[in-house]
Amino acid sequence: MKITFQQIEEAHQRIAPYIHRTPVMTNSTINKMIGAELYFKCENFQKIGAFKIRGGMNASLGLSAEKLKKGITTHSSGNHAQAIAYAAKTLNTKAYVVMPTNSPVVKINAVRDYGAEIFFCEPNQAAREITVQKIIDQTGAEFIHPFDDYRVITGQATCVKELIEDFPDIDTILAPIGGGGLFSGTCLSTSFMLPYAKIYGAEPEGASDASLSIKSGKVEKTPFYNSIADGLLTSLSDKTLTIIKAHVKEILLVSEEEIKSALRLIYERMKIVVEPSGVVAFTAVLKNKELFAGKKIGIILSGGNVDFSKLGEWFSK
Amino acid sequence: MKITFQQIEEAHQRIAPYIHRTPVMTNSTINKMIGAELYFKCENFQKIGAFKIRGGMNASLGLSAEKLKKGITTHSSGNHAQAIAYAAKTLNTKAYVVMPTNSPVVKINAVRDYGAEIFFCEPNQAAREITVQKIIDQTGAEFIHPFDDYRVITGQATCVKELIEDFPDIDTILAPIGGGGLFSGTCLSTSFMLPYAKIYGAEPEGASDASLSIKSGKVEKTPFYNSIADGLLTSLSDKTLTIIKAHVKEILLVSEEEIKSALRLIYERMKIVVEPSGVVAFTAVLKNKELFAGKKIGIILSGGNVDFSKLGEWFSK
Repeated sequence: MKITFQQIEEAHQRIAPYIHRTPVMTNSTINKMIGAELYFKCENFQKIGAFKIRGGMNASLGLSAEKLKKGITTHSSGNHAQAIAYAAKTLNTKAYVVMPTNSPVVKINAVRDYGAEIFFCEPNQAAREITVQKIIDQTGAEFIHPFDDYRVITGQATCVKELIEDFPDIDTILAPIGGGGLFSGTCLSTSFMLPYAKIYGAEPEGASDASLSIKSGKVEKTPFYNSIADGLLTSLSDKTLTIIKAHVKEILLVSEEEIKSALRLIYERMKIVVEPSGVVAFTAVLKNKELFAGKKIGIILSGGNVDFSKLGEWFSK
Repeated sequence: MKITFQQIEEAHQRIAPYIHRTPVMTNSTINKMIGAELYFKCENFQKIGAFKIRGGMNASLGLSAEKLKKGITTHSSGNHAQAIAYAAKTLNTKAYVVMPTNSPVVKINAVRDYGAEIFFCEPNQAAREITVQKIIDQTGAEFIHPFDDYRVITGQATCVKELIEDFPDIDTILAPIGGGGLFSGTCLSTSFMLPYAKIYGAEPEGASDASLSIKSGKVEKTPFYNSIADGLLTSLSDKTLTIIKAHVKEILLVSEEEIKSALRLIYERMKIVVEPSGVVAFTAVLKNKELFAGKKIGIILSGGNVDFSKLGEWFSK
């Protein structure tokens, strides 16, 4: 299947009444530090505090009334869980959300607050899938995967579409890579709207599966995943890898210390709350100043759902 | 002396090229919690991270070229120090800033980064004044008081002027009270532009001097000052008290726990970085929901210069 620009435009019209058109922020101090013009797409200000609502809402709104009535379900430790819970609440149906027992408390509480029914499972992929399958068998709910789903990818593609509409002179785009839903959507909209722009991905050294997958040409996992960027601890899927391979210029890796220092810079200088996963793309720019000097760079700050009990530790230096 | 609306308008035109017209944010969750419409004037996004640049810049821009060449000076532990340092840098002159030895490190560093010369003094009013006087004697620099100065009050008055221009339907205004520069300016612009709006001040229980001063009719100090809202640990002056007395409806007190919980709510829900002093006015609304139900409320979030080493402690609950 190939996603067309028309499908992205239709998704955008479909979800527009339910999402924020998030602001794009700039910061003169940061521009001077990098020697470039940076345009930050602030999805931390999005409904549910992250871009994920775009994909979750697009998939839900595409269901028939009869299908929607049976509810929606997913497995997610994080922002996609909130997206599905919020979509169900908004569309007046039920959400069944499978969350691993090690999910951040702040995200569990948010999912519960939106009225979803939570099913805890062991923190591994098999347990997630088995638990979701049971729910589907019992309820007939529609499964909406966090990223391995064209409806979700098409929804996430609307984020950079807005950024490019607002700043059509951008020549460089960066977004973080977890499962690749946001990033493959970013690749698609950028290739349609700014075919000559360079697209960079960014991921933590402790979750470098996308870099490995681009090299080998097939979906790779790393032996372990470890990063404060908890939204990016996922491997790609065939769907997202295929799109990413076709468009990405390079995937840049960043260390934990680099993420923490970029996070602090964003809080101190831009005065906004972003979660660690959300600053990974900016971290890559900060680390590779020479690569980006003189460019007009669109950067997605993907979310702002922070576990505040960790902030002291991240900012302890 | 009486400040006229024309003087506020002139100040606004004078400083406009040097400051941000800061955004006004709203949040549907918070509106639901309060049962009112809240309009947050985000001075945390202002140049230097606080409203103080308005007053500092207005006073500096009013000086003759000859006078300006001799530099500007002040005593301040906080954001006014940064304002004077930034104004001097922007206008290509020298700043001599007297800071008490217990000033937050983040604010000392910021003042130094703007290129000001810092003079440390003992943390008491007499030491501040003596040190500044020596500087004036030696350099001929112009003293710009943090709040007891009509040029500064006029500059701070431009903040709520912008808010009312953007949302002329507001019927209630809140701002925090430290020395009263921002608050007296807020009283003036509001009384000129929205004569029927109710104006509330807010201050920490640990710095309740403004409440006492309104009751007694003269400038009062409290036996000790203690609050995480470090920008509000100051008593009023005759100039600010006179203006405030004429216009304020009521001054509301908030506890430290209430400030921390409002701070956390702003970070979690609005995804913005505000300093404790900056949320005190919002804290008063959160505490007095019944008083504000159904109102259209303009609230000044006065600044965002946070000592991040403290965040963990504030958010520890």
